[in-house]
Amino acid sequence: MTPASSGDTFRLACELISRPSVTPDDCGCLDLIAARLTPLGFRFERIDGGGVCNLWARRGETEPVLCFAGHTDVVPAGPLEGWDSPPFEPTVRGGQLFGRGAADMKTSLAAFVTGIERFVAAHPHHAGSIALLLTSDEEGIARHGTVKVVEALAARGERLDYCVVGEPTSVNTLGDTIKNGRRGSLSGTLRVKGVQGHVAYPQLARNPIHEFAPALAELASIRWDEGNEFFPPTTWQVSNIHAGTGANNVIPGTCEVLFNFRFASVSSADELRQRTHAVLDRHGLDYELDWHLSGKPFVTARGKLVEALSDAIRDTAGVETELSTSGGTSDGRFIADICSEVVEFGPVNATIHKVNESVVLDAIEPLSAIYERTLNALLPPNRD
Amino acid sequence: MTPASSGDTFRLACELISRPSVTPDDCGCLDLIAARLTPLGFRFERIDGGGVCNLWARRGETEPVLCFAGHTDVVPAGPLEGWDSPPFEPTVRGGQLFGRGAADMKTSLAAFVTGIERFVAAHPHHAGSIALLLTSDEEGIARHGTVKVVEALAARGERLDYCVVGEPTSVNTLGDTIKNGRRGSLSGTLRVKGVQGHVAYPQLARNPIHEFAPALAELASIRWDEGNEFFPPTTWQVSNIHAGTGANNVIPGTCEVLFNFRFASVSSADELRQRTHAVLDRHGLDYELDWHLSGKPFVTARGKLVEALSDAIRDTAGVETELSTSGGTSDGRFIADICSEVVEFGPVNATIHKVNESVVLDAIEPLSAIYERTLNALLPPNRD
Ligand SMILES: [Zn+2]
Ligand SMILES: [Zn+2]
Repeated sequence: MTPASSGDTFRLACELISRPSVTPDDCGCLDLIAARLTPLGFRFERIDGGGVCNLWARRGETEPVLCFAGHTDVVPAGPLEGWDSPPFEPTVRGGQLFGRGAADMKTSLAAFVTGIERFVAAHPHHAGSIALLLTSDEEGIARHGTVKVVEALAARGERLDYCVVGEPTSVNTLGDTIKNGRRGSLSGTLRVKGVQGHVAYPQLARNPIHEFAPALAELASIRWDEGNEFFPPTTWQVSNIHAGTGANNVIPGTCEVLFNFRFASVSSADELRQRTHAVLDRHGLDYELDWHLSGKPFVTARGKLVEALSDAIRDTAGVETELSTSGGTSDGRFIADICSEVVEFGPVNATIHKVNESVVLDAIEPLSAIYERTLNALLPPNRD
Repeated sequence: MTPASSGDTFRLACELISRPSVTPDDCGCLDLIAARLTPLGFRFERIDGGGVCNLWARRGETEPVLCFAGHTDVVPAGPLEGWDSPPFEPTVRGGQLFGRGAADMKTSLAAFVTGIERFVAAHPHHAGSIALLLTSDEEGIARHGTVKVVEALAARGERLDYCVVGEPTSVNTLGDTIKNGRRGSLSGTLRVKGVQGHVAYPQLARNPIHEFAPALAELASIRWDEGNEFFPPTTWQVSNIHAGTGANNVIPGTCEVLFNFRFASVSSADELRQRTHAVLDRHGLDYELDWHLSGKPFVTARGKLVEALSDAIRDTAGVETELSTSGGTSDGRFIADICSEVVEFGPVNATIHKVNESVVLDAIEPLSAIYERTLNALLPPNRD
């Protein structure tokens, strides 16, 4: 059951969760948020396209710009029989708010709005500008989402100084972890070419599986780099290998391989490409290799944003936060192109993308308070 | 067009080619052959089953037993538009007889029959016994064919001394090559087991492709044996490798591999199995491996049969024959279980399993003469 009342952030989170905005549908979430921000003097820009809704909102003309970024879309609910309450009916049980998007990341969106509301009410003449960058295409292919807004801003030379992405980064308790970067992701589609033939006449064929094996063993054993203060070492993993049509008397003509680098900012994508080609070439392989860079790495060193957010967490939740760069890619990879300090911070991520996704009730208003304190620290109020 | 006349062997070959006995259908070929042998005093046994027709025919009670073995089934005609005359209408053009089965191996069957007819007519009281072992399941899965007849003979202790399989073994001209053995074929289905996971967290997964790579490289580089006088070295080939479901962010949980040994009589199947397991175990792999021995190797050293057949070829065709064990498996692998000297000999194999399969007209009666001379040499006529 939906509780009768609680804080402002809780109520807005429930309104957002009620909208079944399965990626890339926005289901009116952006309108709801814009309606809340209009009275505060934000100006809005919708950059929609490809079935995706994007909102850019800004209050103020001056620098620095502190942007809150996030997504209104959610992953599909999955098997309904696994849910103890309907995924798109926000429900409170045992001190938690349940619903698809509760943790990833509608509570963060609500906390952005209410944190900004309180900050603006208290300090209408704050320094710099507050911005929001919201999309309905983060959980999908992410081709028409944040990247499009960033391109539009870059095209007109608009830059951000600080960005807090509301992804659920906490691990055990609100505030224990913020992400100050993400590894890059570089994929390769490799076709090793041989000569098809009959297994009884291997001398007339060239087995691409056999020819690739030593190169594969070498690539799998390479230590690409040692990582650094913020990143673990770069990793290389084959996700797929396919050769042969099932017949056991045919030597196949090609072997297809998909692999992926997750790479630290220590190695560049170009360097990894070159080193891969060098191994394949040294083994004398006949091959085609197509590359896809799905995310450059980004990292935000300790600085004003990390300090402000860490202080806000300590002051609000009494938690000493840790920096991390682990996990998959996020929209932070796009925003880092126009913003020198990007971090991600949001609620505990234990239940995201699962049935019975939830957020702890007692963490909802504190999350809003943390975002508000961050505004206070980075856009210090003028003497009103 | 079918020519009006030519030799006996030619006419019987045409009758057999007219029957579209696509594997495993016999289409009355065995009845046609039995009808020809009945007046000669053969006794017959049909061992049919699984949609397959098998004929065992024998003339005489004493040893030695010289058996002619072969198959009435043919591979499918393939694209009709590729044929210059209908595949099941025997047609003469340019000194050749065209039709599916002309080379593989209905001309050989006809030559068996006419060779035996002339030999028996001349020497009704020959030494030993003449036998025929014919099946309609050689080109297919070969599970209900020759192997069943051999099992029946073995069960009652009936053995053969010499066997000529009528497979088309000649390469450029009739008689240039006989096969005095075939390599064995041993297949393995390997499942290398890892632990599935996300490519962003390889430390929580175990990639079976990576773990298998060094073992694969080693297996591909092993020289299993040096072969011997009759066999090239044993070969190992991977025909299929499959891991991953297409997603590029998942480390697969298993890697499936099909491989095949073609092995000389130098190595035993048991030895090859043990050496494969030793490599996989030394690399610490977690795996399942199922073996299938589809053919043991057999070899017939130079001896009475090779000598008699080589002499017959030299005397008939003026060709010095070569011994070979190359190529795929044949029914010789089954017959070798009950017969110490097995060779394969038949017409030129350049067109087998292709469109416009054919046999040179001038080679048809000589083939029959070679089989007849072999009978003469091995079942020497008593003084009639
Ligand atoms: Zn998210
Ligand atoms: Zn054949």
